Amino acid sequence: MNITLSIPDWVARELSSYPEHLPTHEDRMRMIIHFSKLNFEYGTGGPFAAGVFEQNTGKIISIGVNIVVPSNCSSAHAEIMALSIAQKKRKTFDLGSPGMVSHELVVNWRPCAMCYGAVLWSGIRLLVIAGSGKVLEKITGFDEGPIHPDWKEELKKRNIDVIDNVLSEEACKVFHAFTEGNGFVYNPSRGDPLK
Amino acid sequence: MNITLSIPDWVARELSSYPEHLPTHEDRMRMIIHFSKLNFEYGTGGPFAAGVFEQNTGKIISIGVNIVVPSNCSSAHAEIMALSIAQKKRKTFDLGSPGMVSHELVVNWRPCAMCYGAVLWSGIRLLVIAGSGKVLEKITGFDEGPIHPDWKEELKKRNIDVIDNVLSEEACKVFHAFTEGNGFVYNPSRGDPLK
Repeated sequence: MNITLSIPDWVARELSSYPEHLPTHEDRMRMIIHFSKLNFEYGTGGPFAAGVFEQNTGKIISIGVNIVVPSNCSSAHAEIMALSIAQKKRKTFDLGSPGMVSHELVVNWRPCAMCYGAVLWSGIRLLVIAGSGKVLEKITGFDEGPIHPDWKEELKKRNIDVIDNVLSEEACKVFHAFTEGNGFVYNPSRGDPLK
Repeated sequence: MNITLSIPDWVARELSSYPEHLPTHEDRMRMIIHFSKLNFEYGTGGPFAAGVFEQNTGKIISIGVNIVVPSNCSSAHAEIMALSIAQKKRKTFDLGSPGMVSHELVVNWRPCAMCYGAVLWSGIRLLVIAGSGKVLEKITGFDEGPIHPDWKEELKKRNIDVIDNVLSEEACKVFHAFTEGNGFVYNPSRGDPLK
């Protein structure tokens, strides 16, 4: 038995219009926000994208988008996809292996409870996010789950730095566009009585 | 670009010696603990297994084992595998979809920070665990990450019940055997200075 999760074809097409390296965190976040918008416009998932980059050179290693609905897989969030593809390319389960260059994950908001954990185990050394507050949940209705109150310190304990509030307004514009377009919010139903 | 994660062949072979239904939570946990032991004995991953069952009938829907190291994927924990396979079989990202029978996830300890989030999004209605304390980390050295202090209440808020301490001693015996056999603990290294 196996699971195959596929990034939609438009991602590679879109990626071909970008250079191989993006120098600043703003450049990288601008690209990720663009992918988050395209993902729901193409109807391939929720308004979330993530990318793994070489921290110093800005080399693009992987792009992930949220494909929960088309892949029938509630774990197929953008961060899990981006991290897994980067690990496949680097042939390691630890992107922070000794001797390896530092990798960062860029996401268009703070990862949900699941993806927060995925960040911990991935070996990335820096998490770059557009924002971290309740705004995403308030605008879109997506449940992001309970994050540990000391989430930032718990990352730091494990040598993972955080840069917050990178192009926050631009990220929120996409969430608003998603909501105004009646985007599908795939929170599990969980409402039925047990049977 | 895609990711394929495969359950080792021995799992299906082993599963063929079980009946299609396991009536009690103890029966189900005993099987999961057995798979957790076989997983490191076969050298296919850490000492962790998980299974999705129909809650009332005990029908076995899926078995997942930890395949982080052989698959070069830090997200390939037992719970993610079991939930994803169950969703593939049920053709839905929500195992709690309206009209669907209730599903439970049985795991040989409390899920790590990442898999805790995966449980939230999966649609399962009951989490059955062998234990939830720091014992697993103390015996094995695996980092389980920061779980929210109100983890149980946060599950309940989302209509997910918890049954804790099912065959706790048997689960710990496997963790001890893993440690005594010098099992590989794949925490990311994270120790190098940034470069």
